[in-house]
Amino acid sequence: MSGQLYGVGTGPGDPELLTFKAARAIERADVVAYFAKAGNASNARRIVADLIAAEQIEEALDYPVTTEIERHHDDYKSQMEAFYEASAARIAAHLDAGRNVAVLSEGDPLFYGSYMHLHVRLASTYPTEVIPGITAMSGCWSAAGLPLVQGDDILAVLPGTLDEAELLRRLGDSDGAVIMKVGRNLAKIRRAIAAAGRLETAVYVERGTMANGLSMRLADKADDVAPYFALILVPGWSHRP
Amino acid sequence: MSGQLYGVGTGPGDPELLTFKAARAIERADVVAYFAKAGNASNARRIVADLIAAEQIEEALDYPVTTEIERHHDDYKSQMEAFYEASAARIAAHLDAGRNVAVLSEGDPLFYGSYMHLHVRLASTYPTEVIPGITAMSGCWSAAGLPLVQGDDILAVLPGTLDEAELLRRLGDSDGAVIMKVGRNLAKIRRAIAAAGRLETAVYVERGTMANGLSMRLADKADDVAPYFALILVPGWSHRP
Repeated sequence: MSGQLYGVGTGPGDPELLTFKAARAIERADVVAYFAKAGNASNARRIVADLIAAEQIEEALDYPVTTEIERHHDDYKSQMEAFYEASAARIAAHLDAGRNVAVLSEGDPLFYGSYMHLHVRLASTYPTEVIPGITAMSGCWSAAGLPLVQGDDILAVLPGTLDEAELLRRLGDSDGAVIMKVGRNLAKIRRAIAAAGRLETAVYVERGTMANGLSMRLADKADDVAPYFALILVPGWSHRP
Repeated sequence: MSGQLYGVGTGPGDPELLTFKAARAIERADVVAYFAKAGNASNARRIVADLIAAEQIEEALDYPVTTEIERHHDDYKSQMEAFYEASAARIAAHLDAGRNVAVLSEGDPLFYGSYMHLHVRLASTYPTEVIPGITAMSGCWSAAGLPLVQGDDILAVLPGTLDEAELLRRLGDSDGAVIMKVGRNLAKIRRAIAAAGRLETAVYVERGTMANGLSMRLADKADDVAPYFALILVPGWSHRP
């Protein structure tokens, strides 16, 4: 009998934003696995640290590279491919031995989560259950108290890496928008949002659900310095009956 | 001292997909309020029924109309506007009396939730906290085990009410897509997805996180009958390193 694989969403950061189902899966797992940058603690593990017992096996899956190599480079792709294969093999060995494995995923596992790379390699072979988590964007608009979309509104989730003209076009083509991967793209994103006539209502959010989180009108953000994981929210709705 | 308003996401249906924070807010509230179709039980209340104590005050906010009047009709708008005003006044009376009020919202409160109509009327006057919930779409792609978007993918959330040409255009303009409000729009949505060349990977989901939920390839769905709240998921990612 092989073990069961769980992809477990830990939510955006506040341990209180974990679901009962996720907590149970973590507590019952024989093995708790998580991705992390080599030498750094895993964000997902930190969120659920209080639930992990000393007798559980932990598998830290350390990325071989993060930002050292440009990610469209062949070397990046081949190293990451080999890393995901090796990570899947480590998880598979536990499953083959009959151990249940919970793979932690910050936010929601199947929404931009690294867990997806294990899921596509393992879910057709082993019994698998994915437990959704509160996404970072949902944590952010909740912390900011910003109604995002309503009724027949169209929402676009966009990477801040898009070029300015493309951001502008897409802002004009949707009601609400969430822009991720802000970081060094902030100045460009701000120009596109201003050109789209949305600067007055756009909100900038950093570490949305953390104790030291902040949100402010994008128009009030004084500089163009932002962490990679900051988000910008462009509401599609304000007050229609 | 006025009471505190909580917009509480109850998640997509499975009571286990409630967060700790949401459960605590509901248990501590003096008043638990929820929207419902007149004569029907509230879906959000059913999800958290086990947490509501006999001594808590309940406020059922029954929609005066749902589908009896076409929703772009002026009568619909004026009746709904009056209803939201009256509902906000009922909640405000509790807050003025110092009672904390938890307004339940299926899924996530600020993501297509009726709670938004109370939020815009009350949040600038009363201390307010929004507690995010697992969205229906997240519950659905997790139940289906379908990786949705990764890396720099663009996600579009679209109402099934869009016309066929517009659906086709937007499917061609995004990596992943979630199509809501399927219901009687299913045949049209299916044609647009087929024309976009995405029928092979699209997934149809009904009552995603319920015990009687189902998900299947859209191509395998035999007929064009679907409930209003069914979703169609078009993945933007399958397996890229």
